[in-house]
Amino acid sequence: MDYLKLKEEFKTPFYLYDFDLIKSRFLELKDVFKARKSQIFYAMKANSNLSLLQMLVRLDSGFDCVSIGEVRRALRVGAKPYKIIFSGVGKSEDELEQALKFDILYINLESEEEMLLLESVAKKLKLKARISIRVNPNVDAKTHPYISTGLNENKFGVEIDLARKMYLYAAKSAFLEPVGVHFHIGSQLLDVAPIHEAAFIVAKLLRELKALKIELKFFDVGGGLGISYEGEKEPCLYDYAQGILASLTGLDVTIGLEPGRFLVAKSGTLVCSVLYEKNTLKKRFMVVDAAMNDLIRPSLYNAYHEIVLPYAKGEPSLCDVVGGICESGDFFAKGRKLPKSERGDIVLIKEAGAYGFTMSSNYNTRPRICELAIENSVVKMVRKREKFEDLIALEEECLD
Amino acid sequence: MDYLKLKEEFKTPFYLYDFDLIKSRFLELKDVFKARKSQIFYAMKANSNLSLLQMLVRLDSGFDCVSIGEVRRALRVGAKPYKIIFSGVGKSEDELEQALKFDILYINLESEEEMLLLESVAKKLKLKARISIRVNPNVDAKTHPYISTGLNENKFGVEIDLARKMYLYAAKSAFLEPVGVHFHIGSQLLDVAPIHEAAFIVAKLLRELKALKIELKFFDVGGGLGISYEGEKEPCLYDYAQGILASLTGLDVTIGLEPGRFLVAKSGTLVCSVLYEKNTLKKRFMVVDAAMNDLIRPSLYNAYHEIVLPYAKGEPSLCDVVGGICESGDFFAKGRKLPKSERGDIVLIKEAGAYGFTMSSNYNTRPRICELAIENSVVKMVRKREKFEDLIALEEECLD
Repeated sequence: MDYLKLKEEFKTPFYLYDFDLIKSRFLELKDVFKARKSQIFYAMKANSNLSLLQMLVRLDSGFDCVSIGEVRRALRVGAKPYKIIFSGVGKSEDELEQALKFDILYINLESEEEMLLLESVAKKLKLKARISIRVNPNVDAKTHPYISTGLNENKFGVEIDLARKMYLYAAKSAFLEPVGVHFHIGSQLLDVAPIHEAAFIVAKLLRELKALKIELKFFDVGGGLGISYEGEKEPCLYDYAQGILASLTGLDVTIGLEPGRFLVAKSGTLVCSVLYEKNTLKKRFMVVDAAMNDLIRPSLYNAYHEIVLPYAKGEPSLCDVVGGICESGDFFAKGRKLPKSERGDIVLIKEAGAYGFTMSSNYNTRPRICELAIENSVVKMVRKREKFEDLIALEEECLD
Repeated sequence: MDYLKLKEEFKTPFYLYDFDLIKSRFLELKDVFKARKSQIFYAMKANSNLSLLQMLVRLDSGFDCVSIGEVRRALRVGAKPYKIIFSGVGKSEDELEQALKFDILYINLESEEEMLLLESVAKKLKLKARISIRVNPNVDAKTHPYISTGLNENKFGVEIDLARKMYLYAAKSAFLEPVGVHFHIGSQLLDVAPIHEAAFIVAKLLRELKALKIELKFFDVGGGLGISYEGEKEPCLYDYAQGILASLTGLDVTIGLEPGRFLVAKSGTLVCSVLYEKNTLKKRFMVVDAAMNDLIRPSLYNAYHEIVLPYAKGEPSLCDVVGGICESGDFFAKGRKLPKSERGDIVLIKEAGAYGFTMSSNYNTRPRICELAIENSVVKMVRKREKFEDLIALEEECLD
């Protein structure tokens, strides 16, 4: 990749995504489940860029959405409503109503209270709401506490016993139709054993419900597959699939998959430039033109991202790579061995395709950066850089 | 305050700022320094809403900016260039050029490299750049590591010895004019002793420079005054001022003050509504319609915000107050004793006027919320709520 040429044309900083890599990972995941019916619902919270979604629509992907805004993104790029599901613990009444009107595949319920609200909304609209229930199998996913979601102490899903009761209620309701079950025990999982454990627990529930004549069609195993940020061993996809397939004996279901990070993290690079090399008595700092407002994962999760200076030839030494935002929490790496750089040198922050741009902000009145994609060796812009005028437009209208 | 009426008119969630409180705190701070010339430069990174800035312009406030976007915000609401200063470790060449063209009061330098770059830019423009140097007095501010900035291991400022050398260089340069000195040892400081310690160290440098015929006019003591989030004792303003004034014996300088959080934090409330009360086997959750994308301080700094339900009459018990975003890190409070609520009940998240909206994002495709202000008992909108269309505009233009 000729980053200098890209910098000349688009200026830094920018995100660059490899769409071909996303495609190949999509097909790889689809392939290991070929023994059964399966449907990938891409978890767009990881990266919801419209061009990326459009490319996935062409691969026949479905979409896992966590807000009505995400549902509308999917529809905007031509996704069929029956390929869209809607999850999340905080759906508003208005969002439920819109989702029903859009006639999406199903709504993933996260609590009994939500089920009752959805029933009342469906009744008002004279519709039957297709539902799935997010079951919390109480399995420890062994990941960062902020992205672990499968324990009873988390806000997500409902316990098995309550789920059973909810399915029985829904099956009798004139306005609810149970069609699926869902679980998702956490994010960035490197060990698939807890996922298999959860699958067996949830499959058992499906068999019990089947005996009660409640036949669910979708067995949604969520996402959470980890990727290698720092040389970790990634889970073997074949093993991942086999454990899930093994849990489904005697059940005729479509397997739902909700990969997010797995599909897009490795495809993305945050490309920035060196502004200053600064040496204090105690430390060397490399100040770059991207900052925590562009990529907050290091500050928020203490996340590791590999950093590469493809053109710098200086002597390597330990340094902190930081942005220009006025707080010490604005860093990309601490104590990393990197070559001495010159002003303007390109810096690549790797594996930034997931939870990068989607979490970006305008902190310090910094316009959000542009997004580029490469597909079949062609680079194109997939989101324009914000201008100062974009940032203040909604405030200007309110000035005296 | 009739929050129900506000909800009816504007819907939740929204930020509400008390402009009168900001005014009174501004005047209080100005007053304790009346023994000397002083100028408040509001640190707008805390809250850069244009109407708020406009109100401060009318109080004759100056502005501390950390990006050219912030400089442009100040100018947009009528601030005079000679009341604007520009700080930050990551100013780009383009930003320095624009700042010089705008003819702002001075540029706060954070490194020797930046000084040399600024000199070359000023030379190109045939201008003389007024500068201040951010001195790092190596004083431990005893606050959260992310907002502590006064130690040599931080990325900010330069050590005293280097500062002296830089002033000597600048004084001889045809394109640089040293006019001030700056220090800022951290944020949310509850003990003013470290600020006084720093003031004495930096004032000593000024006397040395004076002996060398370099007479600086601005003694900028930064900001960092802490506020009470959880019942902490706030610093006494009078004591704060006295310690600084005492350090300036024999110097004829204007004291620069950069309050941010101190002016605006207590003025702001994040007003939201209950979506669901949810009880798992282990915990009670109150799910509200605001989320970490609206206020990230609890997730990012583990910050405490008082939470009040002004109308709920239910029995109090321990609960987690969470948003609807799909990660466990999306919370406003954990294990807080709050009344049992009903769907729709108003929830106030207090002291949210600083580093609230400015750090907000569109994570999970959530439109950023609107901002309201109350001034002389009148409520007005100061930023409109984002629409879905606003979020995708820059991506739509790039679709095939």
